[in-house]
Amino acid sequence: MSYLITGGAGYIGAHVVRALRQAGETVVVLDDLTTGVAARVPEDVPLVVGSTLNRALLDTTFAEHGITDVIHLAAKKQVGESVEMPLLYYRENVHGLQTLLEAMAAGGVGRLVFSSSAAVYGMPDVDLVTEDTPCTPINPYGETKLVGEWMVRAAGRAHGISTACLRYFNVAGTATPELADTGVFNIVPMVFERLTAGAAPRIFGDDYDTPDGTCIRDYIHVADLAEAHVAAARKLAGPGPVRDLTLNIGRGEGVSVREMIDLITGITGHQGVTAEVTPRRAGDPARVVAAADRITDELGWKARHDVRDMITSAWAGWQHHHPQG
Amino acid sequence: MSYLITGGAGYIGAHVVRALRQAGETVVVLDDLTTGVAARVPEDVPLVVGSTLNRALLDTTFAEHGITDVIHLAAKKQVGESVEMPLLYYRENVHGLQTLLEAMAAGGVGRLVFSSSAAVYGMPDVDLVTEDTPCTPINPYGETKLVGEWMVRAAGRAHGISTACLRYFNVAGTATPELADTGVFNIVPMVFERLTAGAAPRIFGDDYDTPDGTCIRDYIHVADLAEAHVAAARKLAGPGPVRDLTLNIGRGEGVSVREMIDLITGITGHQGVTAEVTPRRAGDPARVVAAADRITDELGWKARHDVRDMITSAWAGWQHHHPQG
Repeated sequence: MSYLITGGAGYIGAHVVRALRQAGETVVVLDDLTTGVAARVPEDVPLVVGSTLNRALLDTTFAEHGITDVIHLAAKKQVGESVEMPLLYYRENVHGLQTLLEAMAAGGVGRLVFSSSAAVYGMPDVDLVTEDTPCTPINPYGETKLVGEWMVRAAGRAHGISTACLRYFNVAGTATPELADTGVFNIVPMVFERLTAGAAPRIFGDDYDTPDGTCIRDYIHVADLAEAHVAAARKLAGPGPVRDLTLNIGRGEGVSVREMIDLITGITGHQGVTAEVTPRRAGDPARVVAAADRITDELGWKARHDVRDMITSAWAGWQHHHPQG
Repeated sequence: MSYLITGGAGYIGAHVVRALRQAGETVVVLDDLTTGVAARVPEDVPLVVGSTLNRALLDTTFAEHGITDVIHLAAKKQVGESVEMPLLYYRENVHGLQTLLEAMAAGGVGRLVFSSSAAVYGMPDVDLVTEDTPCTPINPYGETKLVGEWMVRAAGRAHGISTACLRYFNVAGTATPELADTGVFNIVPMVFERLTAGAAPRIFGDDYDTPDGTCIRDYIHVADLAEAHVAAARKLAGPGPVRDLTLNIGRGEGVSVREMIDLITGITGHQGVTAEVTPRRAGDPARVVAAADRITDELGWKARHDVRDMITSAWAGWQHHHPQG
């Protein structure tokens, strides 16, 4: 077995590469390095620089490396940007996946784990979001992920590809400082950036219908998330075809933005810093927390790291990447 | 103003061309003729043979003909085929639209009417389907139409394109015998084919939860449908941008399959022929009837032809295309 990890030079992808290798698997990375970083790919892992939009490159890569399994993480993933540039998101996320599926069908590559997102749920009006909660995405990013799931399932059935769609909730933390999230689009690095700049962390709205008025999310450690991919890949490699396996990856536990900021200021030694409350952002649901039991039933996987682990590891990663403070 | 009608050599597209010309508009047809028929395009209407997947052809066509408005009907549209060949449907219907939208954004073409379908609703559990009924398509064809709407709306907002999405219910009839539906994928020609072959028309299941046990649909005359496109195009050409205009096109009246067959046998002189009941087909909802008032409010359009008109005109068309009987 030989795994192709698309987007394997990204924050999450690099963790999936690491977990698969620790599980003894052979991996190849395909990444166009627009947001991925080559240094995240271990030296003894082949790195193919390019996009899944490049059909000829996919065909060559499948053949040269004897690819049997694909874990598809390559995607654009910023909600705001997706509203400004929806056609870019549809091209990269939908047509990129289509091209990959066409190449897999033609090349007889029979297993695919697809990186989906809790964004497919839109503004869920339930305490715990199950995999059967209706999907009504509210921005092009979430739309491209839902379309991706549809394509994956339909192509899986039509072309005999075993497939799994993993819906990530809010990913944070790092397995090693080197692999940390270096962007500032998620709450943890966003707060780090404000704190280290001497600015107050921001809360986008404290008038939501939640206990402390701030939005509630379900955070998952990226190392746990990576292990879920290994478990899903193992399931697909088992006997018989796997269809329509769609799983939430969360902890099933809600943490409010205010609680998160309090934890971060405490862990990073910024006790006493007060958050600044600014108006709501458009499209932020009040509460998105996973029902996380189906994945345990299906794969035997369970999250091991709590929010404190995520922040502590992420802070070590932040300091590693910002040695000047 | 100059209209590009993609799929303008198809059954519906040719009717849209006809209606626009009767309304005094200048039209150009783009059709790859895989299912379209060149003879349906009037001789004095330019016919560009090709696909919306061909970006260079789109750019040239926009420039050469000074296109200001697009009515996008080119698409694959057979539900069963979409299950067998989902990637073909995603390529043609989604990537074909994406390429068109990219070309429109780049070329400053500012108005688009998009051909959607009641298939976006899936298996609606309501008496009358409004435009706000949740969309949960159940096959790749319906999925590609819903994705298409999402792309149209998002690209419209991001690139200043005025857009309308028209959700067709069951289209039947013809304005002239020459323009009749020559396929046998819809109920009316399907029954004609059986009757003229001396075979009993088929009912796929008579154990649905409906008054006579057969499925109920909302039929719309293709000439009325074409007029709705003219009305939508006029609305887009009016003052100010138009966003998120999504409209059902139906009559708001349910007709059962058995009623339809009885009407057809009566009108075509096959009285006394008894339909044969076969098992249900997968994925047929019991009842899909449009709430048809929003389009009247928005565009002042209303269907003028009843089911009898549809069958009578379609039968003349069938006889025209099957002179040997």
